[in-house]
Amino acid sequence: MTILGEKWTFVVLRDIFAGIRRFDDMRQRTGIPRQVLTNRLTMLVDNGVLRRVPYREPGARPRHEYRLTEKGFDLYPVLAAIAEWGNRYLADPEGPPVAIIHRDCGDEVQSVMRCSAGHDALKPREVVTAPGTGAHRR
Amino acid sequence: MTILGEKWTFVVLRDIFAGIRRFDDMRQRTGIPRQVLTNRLTMLVDNGVLRRVPYREPGARPRHEYRLTEKGFDLYPVLAAIAEWGNRYLADPEGPPVAIIHRDCGDEVQSVMRCSAGHDALKPREVVTAPGTGAHRR
Repeated sequence: MTILGEKWTFVVLRDIFAGIRRFDDMRQRTGIPRQVLTNRLTMLVDNGVLRRVPYREPGARPRHEYRLTEKGFDLYPVLAAIAEWGNRYLADPEGPPVAIIHRDCGDEVQSVMRCSAGHDALKPREVVTAPGTGAHRR
Repeated sequence: MTILGEKWTFVVLRDIFAGIRRFDDMRQRTGIPRQVLTNRLTMLVDNGVLRRVPYREPGARPRHEYRLTEKGFDLYPVLAAIAEWGNRYLADPEGPPVAIIHRDCGDEVQSVMRCSAGHDALKPREVVTAPGTGAHRR
C-alpha cells in the first residue's frame, strides 16, 4: 500500500475528491510544502490514480489540473470507510469536516461489509483475514 | 488521518488483523526496523487502536503482545476497502496475498457503499463529498 501509506497523500486525495483540482488551490487549502505536493501529485499520476488535464487562464501560461482516473474514483469506498471511522472516533464536536453523500438523493453514504454469499452488514468481529491464493509460504 | 497515513502503520495493522500479536513475529515477517516498529505500536496504543496484554513464555521475562481494541476492530471496513482496491489494481498474478472472509460461511467479504435512504451498492460516480457540519469556512 505504498500508494496510500503517507499522510499528505490522504490530504491531497481528500481535496481532489472534494473537487479541488489545481495546484495552487491545494497549496492554499492544505499548506503542504510545494515540493511535497509536487512529489505526491507526480506519484499519484505515475500510479494511475490521477491524470493531468491542460487548462489555460486568460493571459496566463498553459497549466494543468489534476483529475481522478477510474482507478482513482475506485478509491471512494476507501475514503468512505475512513471517513466513517473518523467520524465515529475522531469527531470534532461541531461534526465531521467532510460528508460523503449519494449524489441522487443527498443522503449520507455508509461503508458496509457484505460477503459473496449475501450476508449483509457484517460486523468487524464477523470477518477474518486469511492467506489469499497469492500468499507466499514462509 | 495521521493515524493511518504512514506506510508501516498499514503493514503493522495488516499483520495484527492477520493474528500476529508479538513484536518479534512482526519484526520477522515485515522487516520493519526495530525502532520504527516500536514507534508505530506505541502510536497505535496511544491512539486507542491497540492494547497491550501481558504474557510470559516459560523461562522468559514477562512481555506483552498487541491486540486490537474495539476502535481497532472498527478499522476492518477500511482494511476491506483497501484490500478490494488493491486486488483490482495491484494484483499479483498469483492472486491476492490476503483474503478477507466471513467467519461463519467462509465466503469473501466485499466493501459496499450504501446511503441511509437504502440505495445499495453505490458506484464511485454516484457519490460526492460535501462539506460536513463541522467544515470550517475559508
